[in-house]
Amino acid sequence: MALKVGLTSVKFEKGISIKSVSSAAGTMEGEGPLGGYIDILVNDNLYGKKTWEKAEAEFVKKAVETAVGKACLGFGDIDYILAGDLQNQSAASCYGIKDFGLPFFGLYGACSTFGEGLALGSILIDSGCGKNVVCEASSHFSAAEKQFRFPNELGNQRPRTSTWTVTGAGAAVLSEGGDTPCITGITTGRIVDLGITDANNMGAAMAPAAADVILSHFKDFGTDANSYDRIFTGDLGSVGSGLLTELLSEKGCDITRQHRDCGMLIYDTEKQDVHAGGSGCACSAVTFSMIYKKLLKGEYNKILFIPTGALMNPTSVAQGENIMGICHLIMIERRS
Amino acid sequence: MALKVGLTSVKFEKGISIKSVSSAAGTMEGEGPLGGYIDILVNDNLYGKKTWEKAEAEFVKKAVETAVGKACLGFGDIDYILAGDLQNQSAASCYGIKDFGLPFFGLYGACSTFGEGLALGSILIDSGCGKNVVCEASSHFSAAEKQFRFPNELGNQRPRTSTWTVTGAGAAVLSEGGDTPCITGITTGRIVDLGITDANNMGAAMAPAAADVILSHFKDFGTDANSYDRIFTGDLGSVGSGLLTELLSEKGCDITRQHRDCGMLIYDTEKQDVHAGGSGCACSAVTFSMIYKKLLKGEYNKILFIPTGALMNPTSVAQGENIMGICHLIMIERRS
Repeated sequence: MALKVGLTSVKFEKGISIKSVSSAAGTMEGEGPLGGYIDILVNDNLYGKKTWEKAEAEFVKKAVETAVGKACLGFGDIDYILAGDLQNQSAASCYGIKDFGLPFFGLYGACSTFGEGLALGSILIDSGCGKNVVCEASSHFSAAEKQFRFPNELGNQRPRTSTWTVTGAGAAVLSEGGDTPCITGITTGRIVDLGITDANNMGAAMAPAAADVILSHFKDFGTDANSYDRIFTGDLGSVGSGLLTELLSEKGCDITRQHRDCGMLIYDTEKQDVHAGGSGCACSAVTFSMIYKKLLKGEYNKILFIPTGALMNPTSVAQGENIMGICHLIMIERRS
Repeated sequence: MALKVGLTSVKFEKGISIKSVSSAAGTMEGEGPLGGYIDILVNDNLYGKKTWEKAEAEFVKKAVETAVGKACLGFGDIDYILAGDLQNQSAASCYGIKDFGLPFFGLYGACSTFGEGLALGSILIDSGCGKNVVCEASSHFSAAEKQFRFPNELGNQRPRTSTWTVTGAGAAVLSEGGDTPCITGITTGRIVDLGITDANNMGAAMAPAAADVILSHFKDFGTDANSYDRIFTGDLGSVGSGLLTELLSEKGCDITRQHRDCGMLIYDTEKQDVHAGGSGCACSAVTFSMIYKKLLKGEYNKILFIPTGALMNPTSVAQGENIMGICHLIMIERRS
């Protein structure tokens, strides 16, 4: 039984096992510092398909198959799949998982979707609705640029605040049992709107939501940054990470020693031309492969994993609406 | 504690109370047979806003405020909000609920989203994650036509198989306690792909998924159509409803006496020019106001509520992908 903690958090006394984690990603990601942690590296961002959208669905499919396989399970052992992506109407997820025949809850939390999946997946396990749940999220640079910004062929110049959408997918199998490492708590994000309108500065739109969920978490659990070995945000990039530090310091909170941003880890921001860092649902979902391995090895004992999302669409931006942020926080611990 | 039943169902021994239900809708819906059940009727589908997209967000806001008010609760009493819609990146939900400051899980199940919300909302309550959860879904005819099909100004002729997207929003507050009427079980839908490619025949794309979830439910719970007073599908319309009957009869199953489709109830299909019926997330979500009132009055004792969804986007259709279906089944009972 889950225990509500404070206003926006939940504690799982027994812990939800993270039985396996997988990732599939493209060329740029393979060449980046985390390339060695990615299960399936594809040197063709079209993945042998005719369109980027179909390629993304293939990344989804492969990440899910790999996660289920690594957990030594078959699809008949999986009770639910939770998935989402950035394509309109979450198309990459739907086409990627359609052949698995699994009860499916489609999610949308922008680039925080993998965190939303881990949160709801944990609750499904904890409540007794199932023994094994797959959580998955994906993104694709070319599909996202075309859909959210400009046609790739336009060769539009990208401002320094822009981030590079990660091409790939990440998946995890959550299971009952409380084996290590396990999810021991979640803090669910609220929509935070600080009036950002620049679709090329998502970091700024998401930083306030990251600050909100982190402060809520510390308050709900009576912890601070020193309680954790690492605090990973999803895809704030250099601009958003700087803003997060500022927003937290205004509240007397300093996480700089523990904080890392998946968007700053997945690419070599000096050598790879990604401007402010990586982004997209797959940014945190693929980086999670590295985090999980370090948890398994004992390099971390207790971490916060906080995928960050920007809520908007091109029509809403054209109509003058703000870009808002939401983040979902997952607390993960090793248990001996 | 939830009890898993069969392959794809869950039973809530204690029952999840449906504390309140609300709806807000537009002109056509007000003029239809269910007009008297809708809380907020707006005789202006722009709802005083400059765009249809903003109008839809206003329907969302009003439906949620009304549901919370009818439950005699304040926003401080609400633990989570689950919402989704048909706009790209679920924009109507995000902008509609942003000011409420609630922990938010964004969902996407196409027109089955309200069912997905009721399912996950029930699990959140059952697991102890919260005492009160708001579930909401919306759609808007003009926003949907523009986004999925043709610009409204084109005056494009609609084929007889097409349905009319409902303009409005529906919301419900779920609470712990097991008061009547309550949700006593769910059967979670799987993606079903029967090779439909016509974006003007969503009923045909969804009927196979409806048949799948109904047969799964009957098997999991050991029931048949006679166990229920009514079986409400979401928005199959006349074409999809006919197909559902055919598909079920192939399996020796007859639900015709109990079956009603929200898409055939919300408009007067003789007098209102909606072709095959109503559709959209709001179709089942708004019709739920009538269903709930009849449950309260004792006209029904046990029903199945099955919002139906078609998974696609215009890009996927243009790239030759099939339109797939998914449906989420909610079992609701009166308890004395």
